[in-house]
Amino acid sequence: MNTKDKLLINLKKSSGIWISGEALSKKLSVSRAAISKHIRALKEQGYDIESATKKGYLLKKISDRVLESEIVDGLETKVFGKKKIVYFQETDSTNTQAKILAEQGAPEGTVVIAEKQTKGRGRKGRSWLSPDGDGIYMSVILRPDIPPFEAPRITLLTAVALAEALISQVQLELRIKWPNDILIHGKKIAGILTEISSEMDVIDYIVVGLGLNVNTLPDKFTEDLKKQSTSVLIETGEPFSRVKLVQAFLHWFERYYDILTTRGFTSIIKRWRELADIIGKEIRVDGIGKTYTGKVLTVDDDGVLILKDKHGQTHRIISGDVTLT
Amino acid sequence: MNTKDKLLINLKKSSGIWISGEALSKKLSVSRAAISKHIRALKEQGYDIESATKKGYLLKKISDRVLESEIVDGLETKVFGKKKIVYFQETDSTNTQAKILAEQGAPEGTVVIAEKQTKGRGRKGRSWLSPDGDGIYMSVILRPDIPPFEAPRITLLTAVALAEALISQVQLELRIKWPNDILIHGKKIAGILTEISSEMDVIDYIVVGLGLNVNTLPDKFTEDLKKQSTSVLIETGEPFSRVKLVQAFLHWFERYYDILTTRGFTSIIKRWRELADIIGKEIRVDGIGKTYTGKVLTVDDDGVLILKDKHGQTHRIISGDVTLT
Repeated sequence: MNTKDKLLINLKKSSGIWISGEALSKKLSVSRAAISKHIRALKEQGYDIESATKKGYLLKKISDRVLESEIVDGLETKVFGKKKIVYFQETDSTNTQAKILAEQGAPEGTVVIAEKQTKGRGRKGRSWLSPDGDGIYMSVILRPDIPPFEAPRITLLTAVALAEALISQVQLELRIKWPNDILIHGKKIAGILTEISSEMDVIDYIVVGLGLNVNTLPDKFTEDLKKQSTSVLIETGEPFSRVKLVQAFLHWFERYYDILTTRGFTSIIKRWRELADIIGKEIRVDGIGKTYTGKVLTVDDDGVLILKDKHGQTHRIISGDVTLT
Repeated sequence: MNTKDKLLINLKKSSGIWISGEALSKKLSVSRAAISKHIRALKEQGYDIESATKKGYLLKKISDRVLESEIVDGLETKVFGKKKIVYFQETDSTNTQAKILAEQGAPEGTVVIAEKQTKGRGRKGRSWLSPDGDGIYMSVILRPDIPPFEAPRITLLTAVALAEALISQVQLELRIKWPNDILIHGKKIAGILTEISSEMDVIDYIVVGLGLNVNTLPDKFTEDLKKQSTSVLIETGEPFSRVKLVQAFLHWFERYYDILTTRGFTSIIKRWRELADIIGKEIRVDGIGKTYTGKVLTVDDDGVLILKDKHGQTHRIISGDVTLT
């Protein structure tokens, strides 16, 4: 841990109490000038720290940013977020940045997170609205030892983990929308974008990106999005800590990922089916170049949606846009 | 076309004959100083151009490098190599460079080629020996409208195209080794590395890389490789134009790719089976974490090898290392 993070921990420990520059300097074995320099850096990151001659320093308000120093503080994972968290005040797309890092060899569990995305992406090159400081825009690098054709399982697993995180933190009644969205009262609160880099039979890496609307106010959405989008703030009437949601997601994500690699996909798809509530429903699916209508027989153990049309014919659909009919 | 390429074409047209700086300056509508500048640039690229006062310029020897100016001259394709060729005297890996270009939006048919690779790659992170000026180290960006699970077809298609190019140019008796090598008399002359970037149901891009030993002398191979590797030079006793082989490959590659997108994979896999000569053979396949032995029943229309073991059980194998037993 670097000096700045150690300093932050000491400031947090003595929350509400003044701590002198001299005491901090002794504790961290660095000069008073170094303490003063790091205090300035923390202030720039958004920490509200009061300083006064003779009294020293007082941490008044922790940063509301999704800084590495905040995410790791209390993070209950073994690997995810423990090796490397890359933080951006602003970036094009966390998935794009994560792909660049993965190409350079970044390990499994590397997290990329941003306060704001200028080119936030959804499926098929769609955009994802990513206003500054309102949502969670985060990507995680995975290197699973599964064949490429099983990669869609990762999207379903991520949806389950994100649902569990939201349920555990904000007790919202939500539904997973096949294959990769999370809805509350029919409105989208989160989306997942899975990007895969593979050879014929081996996955090199998967980047799982998620966009989650947390403290987004209704007027931040464009007219088009307003009708179909929501946020934690809109649903509960209160802002919620993005850091806590990030920590909860990483915890559940790692937990389900461990289940996948040790015990397989069966229990995960079972939980997915509970959270999705799509089986037996009459739907329309707009797939690539094709539209299907019919009744959902099941989502099978590979995450493939099995649809029976009015002629009694069944269709296996890997991905598409679902509308209830 | 830029002035330098136009100049080169004019020099080639008057091969063996002196052409004056004044004549060139008039033809290309640029100053004599500009002609002189471009002549210097061509010399630096490896063209042997004599210059003499009053006589002008004489192209004595065309470059033996795989320069864009050489590849496009006589290239019989519509798209492949026609939009963009990125040339490196030396690079880490043409596949790596092509992936970076593809991420930045480079169009289908973009070609990356290098005289030398410092980190030439094969399947599963294996290395590919890429000595300076001896082989073809080339990658092509594709953006096919096929589902990700059909991507392995591209490797088989590439093997067929490369085989056709070699047969048409140097009349060598070769065999495709499933899934991605080309052998002559049991020794490897070429390898193919297919890398796929996809979402759940959509391919973003495929980079097809190939390494082909053309003018590699036996002593260029390491002791380990010597027993199992060969080159066009070793097989025919003569050096061969790498540019001609690049052109022939791009021609056949585009032709088969057009067939795939218009008429489907059936005729391609049929030609593959003719060139592979593996059906009915007793083999061992070392796959990921598993080894299979048995008789090859077929390679099916998806490029999956169907093996029957001694217990009569059949196995579907997507990729692996094959040894005849």
